[in-house]
Amino acid sequence: MPDKQPMPDVSFVSDTHSPPTAETRQDAGSAKADTRQARRGFLRKSAQTITGLAATGLAVRTAAAADPGAAPLPVPESMKKPGALTGSALYGHPSEFEKKVVRHLRPTDKQYFSSSTRSPLQELDGIITPNGLFYERHHNGIPTIDPAQHKLMVHGLVDTPLLFTMEQIRRFPSQSRIYFLECSGNPGYTVYGKTAAEANGLVSCAEWTGVPLKTILEEAGLQPDAKWVIAEGADGAGMTRSIPLEKCLDDAMLVYSQNGERLRPEQGYPLRVLLPGYEGNMSIKWVRRLQVTDKPVHSREETSKYTDLQADGKAREFTYIMEAKSIITAPSGGQKMPGTGFCEITGIAWSGKGKITRVDVSVDDGKTWQQASLQEPVLSKALTRFRLPWNWDGKPAVILSRATDETGYVQPTLEALTAVRGVNGTYHNNAMTAWRIAETGEVTNARL
Amino acid sequence: MPDKQPMPDVSFVSDTHSPPTAETRQDAGSAKADTRQARRGFLRKSAQTITGLAATGLAVRTAAAADPGAAPLPVPESMKKPGALTGSALYGHPSEFEKKVVRHLRPTDKQYFSSSTRSPLQELDGIITPNGLFYERHHNGIPTIDPAQHKLMVHGLVDTPLLFTMEQIRRFPSQSRIYFLECSGNPGYTVYGKTAAEANGLVSCAEWTGVPLKTILEEAGLQPDAKWVIAEGADGAGMTRSIPLEKCLDDAMLVYSQNGERLRPEQGYPLRVLLPGYEGNMSIKWVRRLQVTDKPVHSREETSKYTDLQADGKAREFTYIMEAKSIITAPSGGQKMPGTGFCEITGIAWSGKGKITRVDVSVDDGKTWQQASLQEPVLSKALTRFRLPWNWDGKPAVILSRATDETGYVQPTLEALTAVRGVNGTYHNNAMTAWRIAETGEVTNARL
Repeated sequence: MPDKQPMPDVSFVSDTHSPPTAETRQDAGSAKADTRQARRGFLRKSAQTITGLAATGLAVRTAAAADPGAAPLPVPESMKKPGALTGSALYGHPSEFEKKVVRHLRPTDKQYFSSSTRSPLQELDGIITPNGLFYERHHNGIPTIDPAQHKLMVHGLVDTPLLFTMEQIRRFPSQSRIYFLECSGNPGYTVYGKTAAEANGLVSCAEWTGVPLKTILEEAGLQPDAKWVIAEGADGAGMTRSIPLEKCLDDAMLVYSQNGERLRPEQGYPLRVLLPGYEGNMSIKWVRRLQVTDKPVHSREETSKYTDLQADGKAREFTYIMEAKSIITAPSGGQKMPGTGFCEITGIAWSGKGKITRVDVSVDDGKTWQQASLQEPVLSKALTRFRLPWNWDGKPAVILSRATDETGYVQPTLEALTAVRGVNGTYHNNAMTAWRIAETGEVTNARL
Repeated sequence: MPDKQPMPDVSFVSDTHSPPTAETRQDAGSAKADTRQARRGFLRKSAQTITGLAATGLAVRTAAAADPGAAPLPVPESMKKPGALTGSALYGHPSEFEKKVVRHLRPTDKQYFSSSTRSPLQELDGIITPNGLFYERHHNGIPTIDPAQHKLMVHGLVDTPLLFTMEQIRRFPSQSRIYFLECSGNPGYTVYGKTAAEANGLVSCAEWTGVPLKTILEEAGLQPDAKWVIAEGADGAGMTRSIPLEKCLDDAMLVYSQNGERLRPEQGYPLRVLLPGYEGNMSIKWVRRLQVTDKPVHSREETSKYTDLQADGKAREFTYIMEAKSIITAPSGGQKMPGTGFCEITGIAWSGKGKITRVDVSVDDGKTWQQASLQEPVLSKALTRFRLPWNWDGKPAVILSRATDETGYVQPTLEALTAVRGVNGTYHNNAMTAWRIAETGEVTNARL
């Protein structure tokens, strides 16, 4: 039978012991009508009996009982004709039914050059963020850079100033690492966000490939006074940050690929700095220059921006590390509970200091906590997926999660955080996000 | 300074100890012309001196010496104006300079319904294949399926036949796993392929999220005679395969997400079976029906197709497991060596039996071998990235890789494989792929 032929009705052409083959399918047509009708009756009846989940002992009401009037499985249109040609999209794209799953541009933001879009956390599973949905933060838009023209200069307190083409950068020994990246303004201190994306969507995670920054600096040769590296982007903002040399010689990278393919333009194509665990804006995109110095540059992005204004009017500068945080992504704001009974609570946790060691979940607004399971492998400075089985009794509830990292640091409440830092700051709010579940099943931000 | 303003020339506005700030940039314009000119001379001279890689002792000729006439870093156009608006692509796409990086449709194949596209392995880094470049193999095109209409039926030798909506499937406890998927026809036994994609591109790797198949089967309740599960897709081919029950109760999954987002249409949207380590066509896409039986169905795809015809005319049926394989992706066919000297040889290895424990690389067509490093974490039934530093002396060479998995199985040569299996078969060719490097630096398939 050639592949191009649509298949006949393949539903219920046989009893259970003789499932359909290519041959029996063709023979089956009308001859089995009686058997089919009898089986339909059986299915309709039996489908109303739902067993528990034997392995876990949880009562999961997810099966056909929710749809007791369902007829036996009809043959869908998709089986009656060939589909789209193989290779009809040599670079693929999501289903037309997923058009709503895009990065979120806050309606309160005008779409302008210095702005951000948020990853739709509530629609995502696992720990890898697909490149098309990775959050963005630009300071003067997304430049178009021809990699054949792009150069990286390494100069300053080095023995040999060097100028690299992208081809030269790609010749160095490479490494691949899975790391999260988060904007230090995620989510700010104004309680905001109907959805997980709106509330905390300036975080994403990918597998990055590139060269250890240490390799490039050692190629140039560091002079004794070297203490900082000033990185500059080739965007219209000339985005510039000072990076402590210790970080550059530790796990910092110059990356050219993300999730296998070359960086997307909005992620710094063709080359960006990647500083695992540090606030995202320091991972300079479209990087063109690394100047080794003995002191920080105190650029606009580390003076008027990206400092933490305290209650006493003084500002903390160089607050690099993104501390442990977590957020429940399902059920979360904007979603609706599919019914009472079993519900898996799941979300993501991360820490700029290393591995997540524990996530606790509360379903009573923080009065009591249960330890969630962590998806293996748990990687350092990467998103960690957590899950907790829950049985929703249909009553109002407030759910939230609390991450602990390998240093023992525990994610705070917003109250605890602001008690220490005041309310003047904009950055480094790693407080818990709480979702309220109403009796109707509607899920909303519990703090709004 | 508002974000929207383009920045002035920020190159070389200061000596090394005072890198540019937002303020000095604006002051710097013409006043520093003399300093700048002097520095240009210095850079041009020093950039011709290349140091070795101190950390590894490797002589890496990758820096500016390859471009000795290069002028000091000019300010690119991208810094003189704002870039594209933030959020200009709420679902992102690759750079316009990467348009050539697409899935490969063999020119010898007509574009038709039963066909395949290959992942551009030679353009990829790391182990994650982005969804847009994940290989495809369809038997009657790509169906369009509305997830709100899609149903999964579980019936046959079960206590309670069940019918699930996608919403119900998504309520079950989930898991995420990184697994490779490979077509058993990768690459066939005809030596073919100018590039790694053409030669072996029917393999890819992703993070999958879904429900253990075991959970769903236990929800229905397995009867004592249950030994097989017949899975059927909702495509125009009614793609059907028999799966041994042991696999279904082991690591088999029903997956709805790939690399964070929902499955792409060409990967089985909204639901597919995933059988880690088994030949790809058994991971039934667009799955609509799981029938539990006591014997296999012997469908077209396990009789006339996807069996291994031996030298004696007999065929091996049910040869599920994709055995250990590897391929060098760089340097590889169609690429050109950037010069003599340091070259990182890198590629991917995988085994359907578990973890890769070792990859050896030969640069003399198999006479001698060197052990490559494996990128951590090495995951079971996932791609593993390997790397070997090499110093190319500019002479002709033939390079190839050889994978070993945790069972001790070693990837064979094509000669060793065909000596056992003959040349009648189409599937399960896991032989090494060798690339020839010419004195000109051109890389070609060494067996063509």
